[in-house]
Amino acid sequence: MEFTLGQVASILQGKVEGDETQKVYRLDKIQEGKKGGISFLSNEKYQSFIYETEATAVIVSENFAPAKELKTTLIRVKDAYSGFTTLLEAYSQFSKLSLVGIQEPSYIDESSEMGENGFRGVFSHIGKHCKIGSGVKIHPQVFIGDRVKIGDNSIIHPGAKICSDTVIGSNCEIHPGAVIGSDGFGFAPQPDGSYKPIPQIGNVIIEDHVSIGANTTIDCATMGSTIIKRGVKIDNLVQIAHNVVIGENTVIASQTGISGSTEIGKNCVIAGQVGISGHIKIADRTTIGAKTGVSKSIKKEGETLFGYIGMEMKGFLKSYSIFKNLELIENRLRELEKKP
Amino acid sequence: MEFTLGQVASILQGKVEGDETQKVYRLDKIQEGKKGGISFLSNEKYQSFIYETEATAVIVSENFAPAKELKTTLIRVKDAYSGFTTLLEAYSQFSKLSLVGIQEPSYIDESSEMGENGFRGVFSHIGKHCKIGSGVKIHPQVFIGDRVKIGDNSIIHPGAKICSDTVIGSNCEIHPGAVIGSDGFGFAPQPDGSYKPIPQIGNVIIEDHVSIGANTTIDCATMGSTIIKRGVKIDNLVQIAHNVVIGENTVIASQTGISGSTEIGKNCVIAGQVGISGHIKIADRTTIGAKTGVSKSIKKEGETLFGYIGMEMKGFLKSYSIFKNLELIENRLRELEKKP
Amino acid sequence: MEFTLGQVASILQGKVEGDETQKVYRLDKIQEGKKGGISFLSNEKYQSFIYETEATAVIVSENFAPAKELKTTLIRVKDAYSGFTTLLEAYSQFSKLSLVGIQEPSYIDESSEMGENGFRGVFSHIGKHCKIGSGVKIHPQVFIGDRVKIGDNSIIHPGAKICSDTVIGSNCEIHPGAVIGSDGFGFAPQPDGSYKPIPQIGNVIIEDHVSIGANTTIDCATMGSTIIKRGVKIDNLVQIAHNVVIGENTVIASQTGISGSTEIGKNCVIAGQVGISGHIKIADRTTIGAKTGVSKSIKKEGETLFGYIGMEMKGFLKSYSIFKNLELIENRLRELEKKP
Repeated sequence: MEFTLGQVASILQGKVEGDETQKVYRLDKIQEGKKGGISFLSNEKYQSFIYETEATAVIVSENFAPAKELKTTLIRVKDAYSGFTTLLEAYSQFSKLSLVGIQEPSYIDESSEMGENGFRGVFSHIGKHCKIGSGVKIHPQVFIGDRVKIGDNSIIHPGAKICSDTVIGSNCEIHPGAVIGSDGFGFAPQPDGSYKPIPQIGNVIIEDHVSIGANTTIDCATMGSTIIKRGVKIDNLVQIAHNVVIGENTVIASQTGISGSTEIGKNCVIAGQVGISGHIKIADRTTIGAKTGVSKSIKKEGETLFGYIGMEMKGFLKSYSIFKNLELIENRLRELEKKP
Repeated sequence: MEFTLGQVASILQGKVEGDETQKVYRLDKIQEGKKGGISFLSNEKYQSFIYETEATAVIVSENFAPAKELKTTLIRVKDAYSGFTTLLEAYSQFSKLSLVGIQEPSYIDESSEMGENGFRGVFSHIGKHCKIGSGVKIHPQVFIGDRVKIGDNSIIHPGAKICSDTVIGSNCEIHPGAVIGSDGFGFAPQPDGSYKPIPQIGNVIIEDHVSIGANTTIDCATMGSTIIKRGVKIDNLVQIAHNVVIGENTVIASQTGISGSTEIGKNCVIAGQVGISGHIKIADRTTIGAKTGVSKSIKKEGETLFGYIGMEMKGFLKSYSIFKNLELIENRLRELEKKP
Repeated sequence: MEFTLGQVASILQGKVEGDETQKVYRLDKIQEGKKGGISFLSNEKYQSFIYETEATAVIVSENFAPAKELKTTLIRVKDAYSGFTTLLEAYSQFSKLSLVGIQEPSYIDESSEMGENGFRGVFSHIGKHCKIGSGVKIHPQVFIGDRVKIGDNSIIHPGAKICSDTVIGSNCEIHPGAVIGSDGFGFAPQPDGSYKPIPQIGNVIIEDHVSIGANTTIDCATMGSTIIKRGVKIDNLVQIAHNVVIGENTVIASQTGISGSTEIGKNCVIAGQVGISGHIKIADRTTIGAKTGVSKSIKKEGETLFGYIGMEMKGFLKSYSIFKNLELIENRLRELEKKP
């Protein structure tokens, strides 16, 4: 980013006390402020830093009265903390949306369309008959196959791969290296012990406001669609198999895997490294703890599932050796109970 | 794809009742058929849809007698269901194999050879001294290092990375983002607590008819070869470490990891999120359930291993707190048993 | 590689007995030696192979006295075994460092700088205001965002993605498909059940001599930095969340995940498929066994944690069914103990 202090003040509806044409490039913590950075002072505990900071500017609240001389330039706003978070969001949006235009060489089949205000990065590929909405950012080295649709203002980060026939809604973010719409894992066993691939001719549908993490994989359906509904947030290295359906606003943390044809309800929270079997249903608002394995449908809404906690090794091995013989222990108990 | 109904009938050894020059582009479910699609009617339950469908054509069995007038064109075949699955496979093969030619810019070192009827996509890289067979499809943005060999009719999907010295057989499929032949994870501890990399100069050998999933990683051997034998099918996000050997027709589901120098037998079925220790052997026809950890060799063929099931959280925590003290429980039992 | 025997002898401070201008391209095992390969003979057990090998040259110790005529050329060194390992390392270094120059088309913004003796592969992207040190190898299809710094002699392998503001030290190796600096997974729940992204404006700092595995993902900090300290070695498909700190010389095996804001000490050894919760601290020299889940801080240094071992399925299910009722068993025991 590059803003003048005048522009910052205008975003925050505040006032610059000094040279409005100075430029800032970064958001800095006040105690680590350097030339070109902008900080904020909200908590009194940090007040002493404002006299020392080398940040170009500091956002302060209207009623801030400096006790000493200042080297930095003040921007006065109603509330310094909420002013800074506004700036944070503006900065983040700005750096995501400021890319516009076409870098060459990039590849687009002549049968495909891109909307206005978009970006097509260098070494990206867009196949046949695609419809890309307005404001869509296709970063460098992205692969987009044939007949893909992408809604307005979605961002496809570097090196993500969107396979043929995928449909992506608006305001989605697909992070670097994610693979959307690769073949489902379906093979028919043959009499000689080998496997024959089952054709995977379905697709993936991703609705609006969905986020997909780095290097996550989402397979296409065998027939029909794998569906990720509106507002779903998926972390890095997650596996979503063919024909899975994820309900609205469900959140899935890193390295979780969901097997084929399973349906997850809406507003669920699924922690990291969870495994969910195929062909089951998980009710709305289910919470699943880290590393849990779920092999049966969850019918009651709002339940919390858990399955795993580590412990100190020596104790674990001792307990575990008894655990493996629990049947024996129960037998011994039963004998004892028979005694008069 | 784009087939005329005449071409479809010729693939299926059937007969068109109507205009043979009409074109179809998609396989549709009969209840969702649209212009340009082709469906099938096999189950009587769906018969009512054939009078309403907007599909251009419907595959029916020889003896089908319409009860009403039809808007769609019939293709009569011996058995409608098996006719449709034949078409499904033809369609899938067609869309995979129809790519031919060279897109530019792409990079190939002059010392490398490609066979006939292949495809080299835009922004792909082929290093020195490679031998690429006939009919091989190198999709856009694929990386192929030096001295790589790939057998006939294999498909390397977008953005897959095939590192130097890898050997891939014929009729293999490497899905998007997979990394084959990266350095094994080997470091020698030094007296000061740091680690020195052990040179990894081996390679990966993948035999015929192997499928490797999206974003899966297979490391090269330290010396010698990591070997994936004929007919093996590996899902997404799987990790195969250096010097591992996977036997013929073994199937490995998503997010499983196999540590260095382990040998897996043939015709095994390994579910998702399994972890297998290094330097062990797993016998032929072993089945391993999801999330299981395997730390010792399995010598008897045909066994089923399992290790993990989640449960409702409150019950788990209670059981688990006792599990951690199982040793105590056994002691109490022992005391009781001593009583006369 | 391509060395003359004279060059090999000079690297090993040895002597060629024969034509010094012969060239070798490969390191071969003596029993599998072929023209263009170089082998070694150290163990007497293998001595018979030296008379048969087709390798161009064999490294032998000073005192080796052939019993028969030889077809191969000898290179005499002080100790054949340590000579070969020296050659192994030289070979490995050579093949990594011999790449120099610029392949086109590749993309670099004019505001970025690259040092001397570097390599910039075809279809790679370097954004704005980057500082790339000397001897850095940027392989084909690598993505480097804006304001990235990379220290001398680091290697970025094909298709790795280094997002904006990342700092990488010297002598690091980032393997194919790794994603460094993608957005952290942070979302603020809204009253209507949806989530609003929290801007992720921090970065990733990777110190010197760090190795990051294939398709591993390391997220940027929400604010501040995710930090991977000097000498850390991370395997494939590992997830490191936002604001995590990994201490010096810690080793992390494949498919492990570390949640946000957790601090791992130095000289730890973390095995595969481990999961570590967010906002905790792990003491120095902690060892964590495969598949373990760690949900609480580990304060004592040098501990070993473990949590998981698979077993044969039928026994597991029986033990597990009792495990789920352990509370009942304890109650029964307590009743028995009350008896006189």
